[in-house]
Amino acid sequence: MSDGYISGLENVIASETNISYLDVEKEEIVVRGYDLIELAQNVTYLDIVGLLLDGALPNPDERLSIEEKLKSEYGLPPNVNAILQLLPEQADFMDVLRTGISAIASYDVDLEDRSREANTRKAIRLLAKVPEIVANGYRAQTKQPFIDPNKELSYTANFLYLITGRVPTKMEEAIFDQSLIVYSEHEMPNSTFAARVIASTQSDLYGALTGAVASLKGTLHGGANEAVMAMLLEAGSEANLEALILNKLTKKERIMGFGHRVYMKKADPRALLMKEALAELALDKNQLELYNMCVLGEEVMKREKNLHPNLDYYAAPVYYLLGIPIELFTPVFLAARTIGISAHVIEQHDNNRLFRPRVHYKGPRDLHPPQQSGHLSRKDE
Amino acid sequence: MSDGYISGLENVIASETNISYLDVEKEEIVVRGYDLIELAQNVTYLDIVGLLLDGALPNPDERLSIEEKLKSEYGLPPNVNAILQLLPEQADFMDVLRTGISAIASYDVDLEDRSREANTRKAIRLLAKVPEIVANGYRAQTKQPFIDPNKELSYTANFLYLITGRVPTKMEEAIFDQSLIVYSEHEMPNSTFAARVIASTQSDLYGALTGAVASLKGTLHGGANEAVMAMLLEAGSEANLEALILNKLTKKERIMGFGHRVYMKKADPRALLMKEALAELALDKNQLELYNMCVLGEEVMKREKNLHPNLDYYAAPVYYLLGIPIELFTPVFLAARTIGISAHVIEQHDNNRLFRPRVHYKGPRDLHPPQQSGHLSRKDE
Repeated sequence: MSDGYISGLENVIASETNISYLDVEKEEIVVRGYDLIELAQNVTYLDIVGLLLDGALPNPDERLSIEEKLKSEYGLPPNVNAILQLLPEQADFMDVLRTGISAIASYDVDLEDRSREANTRKAIRLLAKVPEIVANGYRAQTKQPFIDPNKELSYTANFLYLITGRVPTKMEEAIFDQSLIVYSEHEMPNSTFAARVIASTQSDLYGALTGAVASLKGTLHGGANEAVMAMLLEAGSEANLEALILNKLTKKERIMGFGHRVYMKKADPRALLMKEALAELALDKNQLELYNMCVLGEEVMKREKNLHPNLDYYAAPVYYLLGIPIELFTPVFLAARTIGISAHVIEQHDNNRLFRPRVHYKGPRDLHPPQQSGHLSRKDE
Repeated sequence: MSDGYISGLENVIASETNISYLDVEKEEIVVRGYDLIELAQNVTYLDIVGLLLDGALPNPDERLSIEEKLKSEYGLPPNVNAILQLLPEQADFMDVLRTGISAIASYDVDLEDRSREANTRKAIRLLAKVPEIVANGYRAQTKQPFIDPNKELSYTANFLYLITGRVPTKMEEAIFDQSLIVYSEHEMPNSTFAARVIASTQSDLYGALTGAVASLKGTLHGGANEAVMAMLLEAGSEANLEALILNKLTKKERIMGFGHRVYMKKADPRALLMKEALAELALDKNQLELYNMCVLGEEVMKREKNLHPNLDYYAAPVYYLLGIPIELFTPVFLAARTIGISAHVIEQHDNNRLFRPRVHYKGPRDLHPPQQSGHLSRKDE
């Protein structure tokens, strides 16, 4: 037994991986050997799908093949749509997503096959269907009609269309695509770790992803982007935002969207990319006040706490300007991360060892219950 | 960063806990200071519920209060029953259970409250409802009518009644109760670990339990009891069983129900208790052939592989003789473990730190994508 206990497994190496790595020294998010930021500036989300699943960037033919496979898997089973409609109005949309992903598992003919080929087919099916679960779950809860996927649109444009009901502009599509890339994979955050832990029992990809949804719901993980937007809307103006942040800091409340366990005192490079996108979008939509407010919040947090914004801080206002309902920010994050988590589950199954750590027991010892032999009699009276 | 990588986090201390501990040296499963086997011989499952939730064995009044609270929470929302009926016939019952638990989350008024009091109320609600999800899920898939819970019966007798449709004998009730105790808590196996990992994002108990169901589905974890029964039924007789095991060993197939990462070369004390219960039940039901077959299998595995049976090996034939459908063995295991997992989630929330380990990256570095600036144009054409 190894000595000592490391709270939260901080800096403990829990997996070997060929997928990704946060190089804190070089400030680089390495994905299959590439810098994620460079990828986000030069390729599309479907290229990332190919890269994560196959280990190499697809050529144009391969990218087309991925797109065709995805489109051929569009559509939810009618019973799953009916299930989404049965969930109560007060349901959290991450819970709706969790139930939807759990429910579609039984329709996958490859469900119990753990081979790389079958797992890859499952990943494609999930990628095709998760955006629709996100959108239909929202539409069911808000009593809006479902929208059929539009195969004329790109995967990314269709995702946004399913949510907003409006075909996005090129700028919106390109920025949403870039956001999907920066959310796609990020070493082994809690949700990816949860998925690998679950998959290590030889459980299936759907179950692993269900656990990841549950993880990402937590406010210390995915929930942050929604909290950021709530704060920005509560403030409503630059003037109010500074007072709001200072007031929260006085009350020792946590300001979401800043800092990161791994990045520590350095800036999250994904946040900078989304900041640029926000500037572009805000200019286009005549919403520069929102951009300026975000920049001020960044400055206040740097000055007061020496903390840098993380991805969620700038992704939140970007999603807001894209017309995505705030309650769907975390579900969209999960949809984007589905490919990264799938790659991790595939890697786990390819070279599996059951995760089974131990505990440090600090409770009492040597207690004895009252002797009540026959307390539950095994004979009929 | 700690050096080295330990596959499967074997022997890594991932949590401090006051709940339970596998003392391999003393061959004791310590639960809140008691020996689990001694508990299983002297108290009831409801006492274990109190012990795990409150840290001390309940007195008779407190036990009655637990029972009353549980019974007051019986019953599933009609929409959840409808959801169970919408799942396809081919669904695995662990997947049905996962979807059902995920779906009932939205009905809990305390869902987003992480206080000990609210978490305890959620645990009681889950304990009340999970047996019904197990039973109704099965009845929906097998086109049998749902059975209403019977509050005249004990919690344990009602659970068996919901599944089989028959009020159990005192012997059946007592043995099932003992099986629930030995399945109730077991330090930090994969499913409990998955639940703590998920809960550590400040996600909720329902989500954590959903992840645990996904984990327990895997054949390296909960699925073992069903695999044991399938092997016993395939053999059908003592004579065939030895040949079947030897044949599987020759083909290097894994024989489920033997060995345990933590117990290593020692016997699982829970298995011995279930072996006694099997003897009693087999005698009562005139099924001694099944008991003898199990004993022979144990001897063969000791002789051939020096492996001891674990709990699943003897719990499987016990559940078979109790009339539980084989497909429900793992769901029943999860139902029994719900209290242990709940205690761990409560403990995690009481003193939380986010689980966020690192990886050892073994993939390529310093690759660059083709420069395709403007690949996705941000301007409308």
